[in-house]
Amino acid sequence: MVEDADSLNALLDQFIRISGNKLLVHGGGRTATEMAGKLGIETKMVDGRRITDEATLDVVTMVYGGLINKKIIAALLDRNCNAIGLTGADLDLIRAKKRPANPIDFGCVGDIEEINSRELRMLIGENIVPVVAPITHDGKGHLLNTNADTIAAAIASELANYFNVYLFFCFENKGVLKNQNDEMSVIYDLDFLTFQKLKAEETISGGMIPKLENAFNAKQKGVKEILITNVENIASGRGTRIA
Amino acid sequence: MVEDADSLNALLDQFIRISGNKLLVHGGGRTATEMAGKLGIETKMVDGRRITDEATLDVVTMVYGGLINKKIIAALLDRNCNAIGLTGADLDLIRAKKRPANPIDFGCVGDIEEINSRELRMLIGENIVPVVAPITHDGKGHLLNTNADTIAAAIASELANYFNVYLFFCFENKGVLKNQNDEMSVIYDLDFLTFQKLKAEETISGGMIPKLENAFNAKQKGVKEILITNVENIASGRGTRIA
Repeated sequence: MVEDADSLNALLDQFIRISGNKLLVHGGGRTATEMAGKLGIETKMVDGRRITDEATLDVVTMVYGGLINKKIIAALLDRNCNAIGLTGADLDLIRAKKRPANPIDFGCVGDIEEINSRELRMLIGENIVPVVAPITHDGKGHLLNTNADTIAAAIASELANYFNVYLFFCFENKGVLKNQNDEMSVIYDLDFLTFQKLKAEETISGGMIPKLENAFNAKQKGVKEILITNVENIASGRGTRIA
Repeated sequence: MVEDADSLNALLDQFIRISGNKLLVHGGGRTATEMAGKLGIETKMVDGRRITDEATLDVVTMVYGGLINKKIIAALLDRNCNAIGLTGADLDLIRAKKRPANPIDFGCVGDIEEINSRELRMLIGENIVPVVAPITHDGKGHLLNTNADTIAAAIASELANYFNVYLFFCFENKGVLKNQNDEMSVIYDLDFLTFQKLKAEETISGGMIPKLENAFNAKQKGVKEILITNVENIASGRGTRIA
């Protein structure tokens, strides 16, 4: 969504229309894969997650934390939206622990341990829009690669201790689909039991599973409303609502 | 200086020993040139300045704003120093104007027009260490490449309106040398007239000229003390002092 100028502009045009304080978490996997390819670094994915060796970590740090993040910042300022780009290392925002090498060695991939929102809330209080790239750190000088959906859910959950938080997961479809081949088969309300059932019967599968697990997690932690939808439907609030 | 782990660690070990509030501006030209090479992008320099076409702008944005900046942030946090990485786009910190294509078309290179230090001072007031990558923006959604020394001098000059500012330019020598082949020929005190004289007789030349022009500029704008030295001499305060 953030990877070509047109769809990024469409996203940001919708984003700035959201009222109240806001925060954006972005990805950039497609650009990272492209950049890795140009640098002769092979991309290996397992269950939709990137195996992140040291060379790949450099690529995602560059692409997420530098290229995409700063383009978003410049584009937001052009829309009179004062923004600041952050990774989970900046301000000690997100501490993570390197994922154990068993059963799969994902390399420099981090599982979130702690969100430190003190300075983040200060920035939000100044009407600054934080734009977060999906890189975390271990507190011992190492950067780590962490899934953007997971970061969005974790930050939303932490901020729910202080604010009414509305969490939007933006992707290519209008919502969670009952039938992958039918854009109109959106499930408008999804509760945890139905999710379990649809997962068991493989109606929901692949990358949608961790996304929804993150969503239900955030719901449980007090995030007020969670919507899974595409860019065009952010404003109207249509899509899959987590019940 | 920031380009390999050992010298970066040496720099940061000295940096954290500086008392009072502090801010770091870094470069990364060598890594950018290497990365451009790997991506098949030719590096062209004129008078020590990088010709920055769109592809090169992406490289410097990635390398300065992402790779190097975030490694520094993680390394500072490892030293219990709460830091935040910024480019000139973040928080609208540095507005620049694309340099006119005449006489030399440098491409996406920005000349600083305005430093907006409001949020920067707020961060400093919270004992957060800003780490600034040498990328600026034009306020119209475009990032620009700006020399790190120039950014350091401009931020120091702006902050001199609010604080007592000490500006250190760190490079490979112990100071400005009278004889390029003699490390011991450091000019310990340099005033503007002497600089003009040494420049005219080509004792001072190349990249040292813009560095010193930036230094004298900052001095004139009220920066309290300016020192040009290497990493090892930051703490002792030895090097070329701008008089």
